[in-house]
Amino acid sequence: MSTTVKDMLATYPADLGDVDRKKLTRCIEECIACAQACTACADACLSEGMVGDLTKCIRTDMDCADICNATASVLSRHTGYDANVTRAMLTACATACRACADECSSHASMHEHCRLCAETCHSCEQACNELLQALG
Amino acid sequence: MSTTVKDMLATYPADLGDVDRKKLTRCIEECIACAQACTACADACLSEGMVGDLTKCIRTDMDCADICNATASVLSRHTGYDANVTRAMLTACATACRACADECSSHASMHEHCRLCAETCHSCEQACNELLQALG
Amino acid sequence: MSTTVKDMLATYPADLGDVDRKKLTRCIEECIACAQACTACADACLSEGMVGDLTKCIRTDMDCADICNATASVLSRHTGYDANVTRAMLTACATACRACADECSSHASMHEHCRLCAETCHSCEQACNELLQALG
Amino acid sequence: MSTTVKDMLATYPADLGDVDRKKLTRCIEECIACAQACTACADACLSEGMVGDLTKCIRTDMDCADICNATASVLSRHTGYDANVTRAMLTACATACRACADECSSHASMHEHCRLCAETCHSCEQACNELLQALG
Repeated sequence: MSTTVKDMLATYPADLGDVDRKKLTRCIEECIACAQACTACADACLSEGMVGDLTKCIRTDMDCADICNATASVLSRHTGYDANVTRAMLTACATACRACADECSSHASMHEHCRLCAETCHSCEQACNELLQALG
Repeated sequence: MSTTVKDMLATYPADLGDVDRKKLTRCIEECIACAQACTACADACLSEGMVGDLTKCIRTDMDCADICNATASVLSRHTGYDANVTRAMLTACATACRACADECSSHASMHEHCRLCAETCHSCEQACNELLQALG
Repeated sequence: MSTTVKDMLATYPADLGDVDRKKLTRCIEECIACAQACTACADACLSEGMVGDLTKCIRTDMDCADICNATASVLSRHTGYDANVTRAMLTACATACRACADECSSHASMHEHCRLCAETCHSCEQACNELLQALG
Repeated sequence: MSTTVKDMLATYPADLGDVDRKKLTRCIEECIACAQACTACADACLSEGMVGDLTKCIRTDMDCADICNATASVLSRHTGYDANVTRAMLTACATACRACADECSSHASMHEHCRLCAETCHSCEQACNELLQALG
């Protein structure tokens, strides 16, 4: 799949300030990929015979999906930029991704969807933290 | 309108811990009301003749709506509770509501939707902060 | 809880056309209440000992929550109104609410959250269908 | 960007029925790319000097983003599959994408973000319609 995150960013008609476009692009891409992976992982967990052992995983997946989607939307807007809101959402997103990566990792040896979802969450957490640092 | 937030909370079949149910209920209700008010305010701003003066307001409304909706979802889940995720989202939500209340307030004397939206955001910010304090 | 749906609608600065404001207001309120109830029901199902019997219910709840939230947002906008989009979303929302009401009803005698959620979905389905008819 | 849509689908532990996995994967990918492009286009429109001419475009973008996100979530779930809900959401999504492609196209010669967004919406509309046909 190729998204248009980078191309859309390039068409923004006003000043983007001194944001690191590469890190911003990557972070948006990671957030939307992570939201989808978490939604799919929650659903895959529901179809496991041992779903009773995966209820915390399903919940963590759902939170992470909701938070990643909201973060992707906030990061896709540049008009009237508010650094405090962006930083608070990146912090929340990194926290949710960390929690989901930890929980999914604990099931990774038994469930391939959890292994893959943990990887995606870990990568998204990194992207959020790198963008946070770049924002200063 | 009457939502079923309080009644649904009462049917949760497992232990809710020592959460303050009143503050939790109020916070969920404020988040979903605030998300709707912000979506409506962004749209009302779009139909003002002076929309060019309201672009920061529209953007702040959209962020606030997305973040309030995600926060309402996180707060509506209790299974596998993670205090760090809840706290980070409440902080992000209070930050977004504060930013939106400030921005809408500055247009309140000219636009009734901004005045009403500022009130709703202010009330939601309070509810988030009170729940944050209650969580310890 | 009191939302500001009706009050926000009253502040819209441009022409609303000949929409039935009462039915529109009720439908938005029902959608946001239903989204919250479905999110809470999915989570309550996750904490039931017999979660393995509730996986279809959890999935139906999650779909219904996502679709109700999107419908509430579409209905909260009036600028550049497109009747085809509104009708298609109301149809999708009524379909999801019907499916969720049916599924939750089948667990209503055992789980109070399913009974309450089925009621909320049924009420939201009605509101969507009544608004659809009013739109012509 | 590479999403994990296809890989996550491959890990689903239960029967997927006779769904066309290629068309399903493409449709999910198109929906999440389109939601992001529409969010970015709405924001870019807000920063154009002639924002007053773009209010219908901004609204259509916002609807399309919300509907694409909800559709991606519904399509990412397979447990307790309900063909009626899937079909209704694909129909709503194709309708919203068509409306947004049409509106953005009318500004494409002046605004590169509208040109790019129209392309993305058109591609997503096609993917929704192809999946609809494959579902029978």
